[in-house]
Amino acid sequence: MEPFPETSDRKSLESGEVLSPRFNSDGLVPVVATDHESGVLLMHAWMNAEALRQTLERGEAVYWSRSRNELWHKGATSGHVQRVREIRIDCDQDTLWLLVKQDGPGCCHVGYESCFYRRVQLDEHGHPTLVFDRERTYDPEDVY
Amino acid sequence: MEPFPETSDRKSLESGEVLSPRFNSDGLVPVVATDHESGVLLMHAWMNAEALRQTLERGEAVYWSRSRNELWHKGATSGHVQRVREIRIDCDQDTLWLLVKQDGPGCCHVGYESCFYRRVQLDEHGHPTLVFDRERTYDPEDVY
Repeated sequence: MEPFPETSDRKSLESGEVLSPRFNSDGLVPVVATDHESGVLLMHAWMNAEALRQTLERGEAVYWSRSRNELWHKGATSGHVQRVREIRIDCDQDTLWLLVKQDGPGCCHVGYESCFYRRVQLDEHGHPTLVFDRERTYDPEDVY
Repeated sequence: MEPFPETSDRKSLESGEVLSPRFNSDGLVPVVATDHESGVLLMHAWMNAEALRQTLERGEAVYWSRSRNELWHKGATSGHVQRVREIRIDCDQDTLWLLVKQDGPGCCHVGYESCFYRRVQLDEHGHPTLVFDRERTYDPEDVY
């Protein structure tokens, strides 16, 4: 696969048929992964150009791990692979949306289907608190 | 509303009930906004602490515009306000998920319901192209 062409021309970015991801100064774009059927937001991650290339070729999500500073084939350790059903890009081509079939009980290393297992709620004084309103789907100690 | 407490303790972040958003070096966190009913990914944006505070208090999405370098009450100009039905946060508290009711015909300034109006598709040579597979829902010239 050839390198992704670069452009900063707004019309080309918004109205063109050329994939020209606008990687940030770290060479990354944010990636939103949702379940292709339920629409649940599974996780938010990052890709560099190589991760995107591998994702397109492999059909499974490959991210860039900012903590480990390396390519991250999601599920390589846990088996919780994300099979890509569709990839979409936004108007100014600085964010990707992956619609995936999540293998296994979930994507979150804490043991939930989704990383977004807590709801922000204001208490009676107007202070935000976090409410756990999702069930764990697996025990991370069995996996990692 | 008091300032959001800061912590880098992993256990507190993942298992706690305290909202401690981990703003990046620019003071921002990524925000994913989806339609609260259909699950459609509407847009990806950013918030600083003040934008989050205003969003919580107002019940409507207030972002930080990185291009204009100012608070951005979504829909203040277009009328396409996003009414917040639910806010969620991820395991390491560095991403927010807004489930919203989008007022008007859409959130995207190009004229679509969602900013993600194009699908990435590999052509017969394995080269990625963008496919327009969504209908425009309004004419931006009527709004902006």
